[in-house]
Amino acid sequence: MTKIAIVGYGNIGRSVLEAARAAGDMELVGVVRRDPANVPAELAGVTVASDLAALPQKPDVAILCTPTRSVPDYARRCLELGINTVDSYDIHTGIWELKSSLDPVAKAHGAVSIHSAGWDPGSDSVVRALLQAAAPKGITYTNFGPGMSMGHTVAVKAIDGVKKALSMTIPLGTSIHRRMVYVELEGGHTLEEVTARVKADPYFAHDETHVIAVDDVDALLDMGHGVNLVRKGVSGVTQNQLFEFNMKINNPALTAQILVGAARASLRQAPGAYTLIEVPVIDLLEGDREALIRGLV
Amino acid sequence: MTKIAIVGYGNIGRSVLEAARAAGDMELVGVVRRDPANVPAELAGVTVASDLAALPQKPDVAILCTPTRSVPDYARRCLELGINTVDSYDIHTGIWELKSSLDPVAKAHGAVSIHSAGWDPGSDSVVRALLQAAAPKGITYTNFGPGMSMGHTVAVKAIDGVKKALSMTIPLGTSIHRRMVYVELEGGHTLEEVTARVKADPYFAHDETHVIAVDDVDALLDMGHGVNLVRKGVSGVTQNQLFEFNMKINNPALTAQILVGAARASLRQAPGAYTLIEVPVIDLLEGDREALIRGLV
Repeated sequence: MTKIAIVGYGNIGRSVLEAARAAGDMELVGVVRRDPANVPAELAGVTVASDLAALPQKPDVAILCTPTRSVPDYARRCLELGINTVDSYDIHTGIWELKSSLDPVAKAHGAVSIHSAGWDPGSDSVVRALLQAAAPKGITYTNFGPGMSMGHTVAVKAIDGVKKALSMTIPLGTSIHRRMVYVELEGGHTLEEVTARVKADPYFAHDETHVIAVDDVDALLDMGHGVNLVRKGVSGVTQNQLFEFNMKINNPALTAQILVGAARASLRQAPGAYTLIEVPVIDLLEGDREALIRGLV
Repeated sequence: MTKIAIVGYGNIGRSVLEAARAAGDMELVGVVRRDPANVPAELAGVTVASDLAALPQKPDVAILCTPTRSVPDYARRCLELGINTVDSYDIHTGIWELKSSLDPVAKAHGAVSIHSAGWDPGSDSVVRALLQAAAPKGITYTNFGPGMSMGHTVAVKAIDGVKKALSMTIPLGTSIHRRMVYVELEGGHTLEEVTARVKADPYFAHDETHVIAVDDVDALLDMGHGVNLVRKGVSGVTQNQLFEFNMKINNPALTAQILVGAARASLRQAPGAYTLIEVPVIDLLEGDREALIRGLV
């Protein structure tokens, strides 16, 4: 059994709990959250603490379900305790830096850190790498949605005049996306002024953006998301090799499932920091290696 | 530079030559084929020999492009010389046995063997493993075609009354396939008797099979193939996670490209025998690791 701790308990943390319980090889040592007195029904009987050190046992792996910006600090602290970490750190431009900064820490403490192990970055990254191997010359387009963008939604919520918000990502092909922004306005603010602020925000400045006032943002919320990832490229000297990967998924459920697989895989890697494309895919899977190879290869 | 030898020079061998020349990190040491006097124009300047020992240098990796049945013997002989091997061995039921029998040989000689590294088995296997990681409960269907099945075509050619043949695989969904068999008849044989023999053959006995007499099988030949791989499954406790992978590709060109990637990857693994799902996908790729991670993750 792999002993895991869940660090951070929002949507992703709750889904990790479900995925870990559905797996046959995971033992939950405890949940770490800011307010350990906040124990919802599904955590009955689970140790909930404000710090890893307060858990009854040292976990093999800490599954980091905190906001992305807190991942580097939490990962470092776990690794220094010799605890493996996995995360779904999703700032694409910062992944190499995260890995490079934590690799020496992991190695110094004989631990393993697997970064950005959600679905994008994560399982989509594995597909992108595989398609580049299949056709080294060519272009890959990753088209997201329709689905809720967490980052864009948070950005809109921070805008003056916005009470509640939802930013949906709509794929227009060739990695171009439309942003459909639904807002509940604060009293005394107009849709026109809020729209201008949203369109001026760096998150939205480069995309076609529509801002729509609604009475009830909650009524629109849905955790479904999708990807359409396409590559047209060249294998050897053969042009026009065509590849496409599509999925329609519950966002936190898939993120959590990949995280649990990465936790399992962390125990099979040499000390150091990894992204998912650096980990053999079989290591994510539960079960006997012979049966997996016979069934999947 | 990775020094490679191409062992066997049919469709796949020729495509491996193209893929190796298109790569920036591969150096061709020579080609091994039964008849070394058979040197087509594209091999001008390349050492062609009937045996690995006759090549001017020892290669790092032998890319085995022989018929599948010859792979185990050739792989063993290369590994005993301390030469890594990669192959596209495609008898799904024999892959575990091939790997298990060659793993100790590879380890004893400090070499690496990567098996079944074409597209199916091969890159499709990586997709199947990844989708099982994404949704551990569920069913994956691999639908092949439309495209030529080499194995079925060879089986038809061996049937009495058949001069030339082509067996096309047509996907009907849920891993069920129709076989469209085009034959040139030998004189004195009827379509009815040949059809009965084809349908009685174990290769065809369980599939919907249509046999059609044509004047010219060559006019129908096309190396294009396709896959539609679908999984519907459960991530954690979340049902109805939907995944689909499609490709339309030139068959030998893709097989060869994956083989060249596997040759590169073989130099990064510890001694032993591997299938493609046991190898980090990044290891298949040419180029700087930082740039690959920045670009793909």
